Amino acid sequence: MLQPEHIGIAVKNLATSVPLFEKLLNSQCYKTETVESEQVNTAFFKTGETKIELLESATTDGVIAKFIEKKGEGIHHIAFEVTDIEAEMQRLQNEGFTLLNATPKKGADNKLVCFLHPKGTNGVLVELCMTLP
Amino acid sequence: MLQPEHIGIAVKNLATSVPLFEKLLNSQCYKTETVESEQVNTAFFKTGETKIELLESATTDGVIAKFIEKKGEGIHHIAFEVTDIEAEMQRLQNEGFTLLNATPKKGADNKLVCFLHPKGTNGVLVELCMTLP
Repeated sequence: MLQPEHIGIAVKNLATSVPLFEKLLNSQCYKTETVESEQVNTAFFKTGETKIELLESATTDGVIAKFIEKKGEGIHHIAFEVTDIEAEMQRLQNEGFTLLNATPKKGADNKLVCFLHPKGTNGVLVELCMTLP
Repeated sequence: MLQPEHIGIAVKNLATSVPLFEKLLNSQCYKTETVESEQVNTAFFKTGETKIELLESATTDGVIAKFIEKKGEGIHHIAFEVTDIEAEMQRLQNEGFTLLNATPKKGADNKLVCFLHPKGTNGVLVELCMTLP
């Protein structure tokens, strides 16, 4: 069974969205991190077992900037925690899902990640993530 | 601190999406329920502390049908579990958030629910939910 590790939300501006989500969630942002490979600045909130991750584009043409241009700010992806990311990638590929990256890549929060193509998941961008030792 | 209770996903057709998400999540759908007041058919998956809820419109002009028409299938809302929904609605209103319903209403899964206006939450449709005794 896959379990949600975090929910990613695309925002235009962390400087205004972090205090907004602190009020909404009644929880302080405990970490910010830039993921160079994805050109995003992230901010994390502990909200029980499933965290909230805000994503701001670090460049004008990054994936988050393009997402907001097309769809507006809002929920961007759901990430599921796995213990063996390569085995889970293989299982999902065998089930007919399409992987967006053939090998796991370094994501935020000390994790290896892989995304599934949303065309095969009813429009939901799904991330698999495995915490590195 | 608010904790995600479930993530709602808008789909066109539960008959095809339930088996798809059973494969994706590696978890069986354990409940389906029609919420007459919202004109939706729902299907639930246990995925740790945060469930997945699929939402199919029960009518051609329901809120889920309209959402899909505008944005396509995909993530629709995040629901947060609260122990006192009226107190939480008051807290959020005091913080400047806009409630979409002034009093809690009956939702799926034996809960009282209230939605926040996504214009005040960076485009995220937020549901508060409280399990009835």
